[in-house]
Amino acid sequence: MSSEFADIATFLRPLASEQGASLLLDDGAHLSFGQNERVSVTADMLIEGVHFFANGAPEDIAAKALGCNLSDVAAMGAIPKYYTLSIGRPSWADSAWLQRFCAGLQKLQTKYGFSLIGGDTVASDRLVLNITMIGTQSQDYNNPLRSCAREGDEIWITGTVGDGYLGLQSLLGKVPSCSDEDRVFLEGRYWRPIPRFIMNSFAGGHVACADISDGALADIRQICRASSVGAKVELENMPLSAPFMAVRGQGKDALIEAATGGDDYELILCASAKQMEIIRQQSAGLRFTKVGEVTSSEQGYSICYRGSPVELSQLGWEHL
Amino acid sequence: MSSEFADIATFLRPLASEQGASLLLDDGAHLSFGQNERVSVTADMLIEGVHFFANGAPEDIAAKALGCNLSDVAAMGAIPKYYTLSIGRPSWADSAWLQRFCAGLQKLQTKYGFSLIGGDTVASDRLVLNITMIGTQSQDYNNPLRSCAREGDEIWITGTVGDGYLGLQSLLGKVPSCSDEDRVFLEGRYWRPIPRFIMNSFAGGHVACADISDGALADIRQICRASSVGAKVELENMPLSAPFMAVRGQGKDALIEAATGGDDYELILCASAKQMEIIRQQSAGLRFTKVGEVTSSEQGYSICYRGSPVELSQLGWEHL
Repeated sequence: MSSEFADIATFLRPLASEQGASLLLDDGAHLSFGQNERVSVTADMLIEGVHFFANGAPEDIAAKALGCNLSDVAAMGAIPKYYTLSIGRPSWADSAWLQRFCAGLQKLQTKYGFSLIGGDTVASDRLVLNITMIGTQSQDYNNPLRSCAREGDEIWITGTVGDGYLGLQSLLGKVPSCSDEDRVFLEGRYWRPIPRFIMNSFAGGHVACADISDGALADIRQICRASSVGAKVELENMPLSAPFMAVRGQGKDALIEAATGGDDYELILCASAKQMEIIRQQSAGLRFTKVGEVTSSEQGYSICYRGSPVELSQLGWEHL
Repeated sequence: MSSEFADIATFLRPLASEQGASLLLDDGAHLSFGQNERVSVTADMLIEGVHFFANGAPEDIAAKALGCNLSDVAAMGAIPKYYTLSIGRPSWADSAWLQRFCAGLQKLQTKYGFSLIGGDTVASDRLVLNITMIGTQSQDYNNPLRSCAREGDEIWITGTVGDGYLGLQSLLGKVPSCSDEDRVFLEGRYWRPIPRFIMNSFAGGHVACADISDGALADIRQICRASSVGAKVELENMPLSAPFMAVRGQGKDALIEAATGGDDYELILCASAKQMEIIRQQSAGLRFTKVGEVTSSEQGYSICYRGSPVELSQLGWEHL
C-alpha cells in the first residue's frame, strides 16, 4: 500500500463520518437533500506563499483554509454540511504534518457540525489546498446576494477590520512594537477566521451580504457593482479592535490601512434600518457597526473621512 | 477593474448559465434539488507538470480537467449538472489563453448539459486546476460503489486500455515509430477522456464500478480491497485498440503496459453475468470486454497470462 493510501486511511478517513462518503473508498460522495433545502456551494483555492506561510502551524493552515470557505457559506446565509478537500502535497508535508493538519480540520468540523466527503491528493512542489464547501439553508429563509443592495440601505460591518492584515504584517516581521498579547490576538485573527453565521435564519426582506476578504472598501465596491448602486462610506466609523489601535492608533492612515488590508472575514451587510435592527437583535453579542449608506449609482462610490472625500489609489488586495 | 475581474466577466461568466450561480457575482451558488434526486460530488486537482503539459492546447487542458471529473461522475452512476472551477493561474496563462481554455469548457458543457456555478482564481507559479463536479441521479437507480463487488462477479472493462498512456509516451517523444493517424488518436485519448455514462439509468442489482485512472490492474485491486474480495484477471483479454497494437503489438509486455499505464478513463464493472448482460444491452455500441472474475479474498489477487501467473512489481501509477 503506497504511503498516500495509508495516509488517507489513517488521517482523512476519520474526518468522513457522513455515510454517503463511503469512507472515501469511492471517487465521490452520494448525498441526499430535503425538499425544502436550498444548497449553497462555494470554492476557495489557497496556495503556499500566496495565501499562507508554509511554516505556519499545520492546525492553523487547516483553520485558514476552512475558515475562508466557512465565511463564504456564512455570507450566503447557509450552514456548512459537507466539503471536498484537494491537496497538492509537497514532500515536506509528511505524515506527521498531515496528522496535525487533519486535527485542525477535525476541530472545526466538530465545532460547526460538518464533515469531509471526498477530494483528491496529488504531488506538488508547493502546498495547494482547494476546498469546496456545501451548505444548506431552508428555502423559507433569506438568500443574501451581492446584488441585493438598494439605495437608502444602511451599510454595516460585523466585528472589527484590519486585524487579519495587521496579523499578517506581524508575521512578516513588520510590526516591531507590539505587546505579546496583542501579537497573539492579531496573528490569530490572520490564521483563524471566525465565520459569522448570522444570516442562516433570517426570513425578512432583502439583504445584500458578502464577507470581507479583499478589504472592506473593495468588498463594499463589489456589492455596489453587483447591485448597480453607489455608496458613501465614512472611514472614521470603521470598527477597530483594541490591539489594532494599540499598534496603529485610530487616525486617518490607520483607518485606511484597516479598511483596505483584507483577510478580515467579517460580513458586510446592506439592508434597511428596520431589517438591520432585526438582524442585530438576532445576533446579540456580536459587534455591528454602521459604516455608511447605499446611494444611487449616479452618486458613485465615495469614501469620506470626517466629511471630506478621501482619494485612494487602491481599495484593497488586487488579485493577479 | 483589475484584469482578473475583467477576465471573469468576459470568459467565465458566459459559462455560468444556471440561475443559482448569480452570474458569478457571489462567492458561491444557490441550488435546489428534487426530492427524488441523489446528489453525487467528486473532486479532482490537476497540476501542470504532474497531470498535464503546460504547452498543451488550452482547449485540451480544459478537456482533460473536465474529462477526469466527468469520468468519476459516470463511475458513480450520475449525470453531470454543475461544477466549480478553481484556477491557480500563472502569468503565462493570459487572457488569450483563458479564452481558448473556456471555449474548451463550453464545448463539453454543451455536449453533456452541465454548467459552471462558481470557483476561484488565484495567482500561482504553476497552472493548478481544481474541479468539483456535482451530478445527480434518481434515487430509484443503482448506486455503484467500489465496495459492491462479490465473489462470482464477472469483471468487465469498457472501451480499450493503454491508449491514454501511449499517447502520453508519444507526447514525451518516446514513440518514434507511429503513423500520424495513430499518433493523433493516441494523443487525443490522453488529452480528451470520454466519460462512459452507462450506469445512470441502471435499476438492477449490485454493481461495483470505478473508472481507470491509475491503470486497470491497480484500479481493479482498489475495488477488491474496498469489497474485501479477491480477483483473477486474464491479461490476454485486456482490450487493446488498433493504434495501440500497431505500435506495441499484443504480446505479454504490451498487455502489461496497457493494463498498468493509467489515464484510460474507461469503466471497470463487477457484476453477475446476468446484470452484465443487461448493462451491455443498454449500451449497445460501446465495446465491453470481460477481463476476469471476482474470487474470494482468500484466493487473493492473481494476474495471469495464458493460464500462467504473472508477477508485477507495480500495478499502475503510484501517487506521491
